[in-house]
Amino acid sequence: MRIALGVEYNGAAFCGWQLQEAGVRTVQGCVEEALSKVANHPVVATCAGRTDKGVHALSQIIHIDVTAQRSMRSWVLGGNVNLPNDIGFLWAQEVDEQFHARFSARGRSYRYIILNRMVRPALLINKVAWDYRALDVERMQTAGNFLLGTHDFTSYRAVGCQAKQPVRTISRLSVTRQADYVIIEVSANAFLHHMVRNIAGVLMTIGCGEQAPEWAKAVLEARDRTAGGVTAPASGLYFQSVLYPEPYMFPQAVVPVL
Amino acid sequence: MRIALGVEYNGAAFCGWQLQEAGVRTVQGCVEEALSKVANHPVVATCAGRTDKGVHALSQIIHIDVTAQRSMRSWVLGGNVNLPNDIGFLWAQEVDEQFHARFSARGRSYRYIILNRMVRPALLINKVAWDYRALDVERMQTAGNFLLGTHDFTSYRAVGCQAKQPVRTISRLSVTRQADYVIIEVSANAFLHHMVRNIAGVLMTIGCGEQAPEWAKAVLEARDRTAGGVTAPASGLYFQSVLYPEPYMFPQAVVPVL
Repeated sequence: MRIALGVEYNGAAFCGWQLQEAGVRTVQGCVEEALSKVANHPVVATCAGRTDKGVHALSQIIHIDVTAQRSMRSWVLGGNVNLPNDIGFLWAQEVDEQFHARFSARGRSYRYIILNRMVRPALLINKVAWDYRALDVERMQTAGNFLLGTHDFTSYRAVGCQAKQPVRTISRLSVTRQADYVIIEVSANAFLHHMVRNIAGVLMTIGCGEQAPEWAKAVLEARDRTAGGVTAPASGLYFQSVLYPEPYMFPQAVVPVL
Repeated sequence: MRIALGVEYNGAAFCGWQLQEAGVRTVQGCVEEALSKVANHPVVATCAGRTDKGVHALSQIIHIDVTAQRSMRSWVLGGNVNLPNDIGFLWAQEVDEQFHARFSARGRSYRYIILNRMVRPALLINKVAWDYRALDVERMQTAGNFLLGTHDFTSYRAVGCQAKQPVRTISRLSVTRQADYVIIEVSANAFLHHMVRNIAGVLMTIGCGEQAPEWAKAVLEARDRTAGGVTAPASGLYFQSVLYPEPYMFPQAVVPVL
C-alpha cells in the first residue's frame, strides 16, 4: 500500500532532507526511522523536493510503501510519537501506486522571508534571513518579473547542481512587504539546487539599490553562475507546497502566524 | 542621562525577565551585562512588564540611567554585540528623568498564540501553545467580553502574585483565527501575575465546548483562583507593547511574519 504524508519541519538542526552516513541528522533519516517503527518493517521515504541544511518545510510531501495495515490516524500520531520535536507529520492519505511524491508533482512553491530592519532578529533566530539595508519591494518585483516564464536558469543554479538540464518554468514570483518583513513567494514546475536562494540573493542586491532591476535579466542571460550574486542564507527559506494533478488532493500548507 | 530602549527576546531559554542568583539565565541579567559593557559602568535596567520563564517579547520597554556619553546607535548596536542571539535591542531614545518604564506606563498589550490542529507544532516549537481540540473563536470572544472593563481579577491571578490589589481594567480583548492559528490579544492598564495565561486557559476551555461562555464571568465573580481553569503554557505568550502618555513616543512593535 502506498501512503502520502505531509511533513512540517524546522530545518535549523538538520543537515537537510537527504539521508547521509550514520550520525548525520537528516529529515529523511528521522522520518524513515519513525515510520519504520509504526510499520514494524523498514520504510523508505521519497519526498517531493529535497531541502538543504537549515531550510524549513511548512508542508513537505512524501510517499512510503508499506505492508502493515494501520489507520491514517495511526501513521500520523504514531509517527509523531517517534519523531523529534522539530519534525511532525501533518496528515496521511492512501494513494494509488501511480502516485509518486517527486515525479507526479507538477509544481512546487517556496517562501523566502527577510527581516528588513537595522537590528538582527532575536525572536526568529534561524527562521528568517536578515538584511539591514532598506529593501525596495517594487524594485524587487520588477526584477523578479524578468524571471517569469521558461528560461535556462544556469546563472541561478548551484555549481554542484545534479539536475540533467537547467531549464525551468517560473509561474509566479511575488515580492511583498508586511512592516519589517519582506516575503518572496516563488512557484515553478521544479527548482534547481539553490535556485530560490540565488534568486533571493539577486533580488536583495537589487532591492537595496546596489543593482538595477534589469540586472536580474542580465544575470539570467549570462548563463553563468559567477554572474549572479550571493546565495541568500538557508534560514529564510520555507518549502511551502506541491501541486499534483487530479485526483490527488491533499491539505494545503498553512502559513504560520505569531 | 536616562535612556529608554526597546528589547525583543525569544523567552524559550530564559528563566524570565527578573535577575536571580548567579548562574540563572535571565533577560535582565543579559541586558544589564551588555549595557554595562557599552557604558563602561554598572547599569541597572527597569522594564515595563516582567515576563515569566518561556514568555517572549516583541517589544519590551526598559529604561537605564547612565553617565557615559554614547550615540543612540551605539547603545543599540554596541549593546547587541554583547547580547546572546536570542535577545536584541530594537531602538534607543533619550528620555527625561520623569520617565519610568514601569510607573509611566498607562497600558500594556499581550498576544497569546494557539496552534489549533490535530498535530503538535514542529516548526514553531516553544513559540506557540497547542490545542488539538477544535476551538470556536466566537464562543471565546463572547466569553472574553465578560472580562472587559474594571474588575477584581483574583480568579485570574497566580496564587503567589505580589501585586498589592487585584483590580485591573481590560480595555480590549480580541479572539481571532487565521487558519490553524487562534490569536488572543489583550490590552489592560496593567496585568496580574499569570493573568493572560489564566485568561487563555479559561477561553480555551470554553472554546472547545467544555464550558459555556458565561463560565468566564462565573470564574471572575468567584474571586477565587481555584474556580478558574488551567494556566495556559508560557510558550504562546508575547509581551507586545506599552502605552505611555505624551510626550513619550516610541517605535511600535512589529508582529512577526513567516
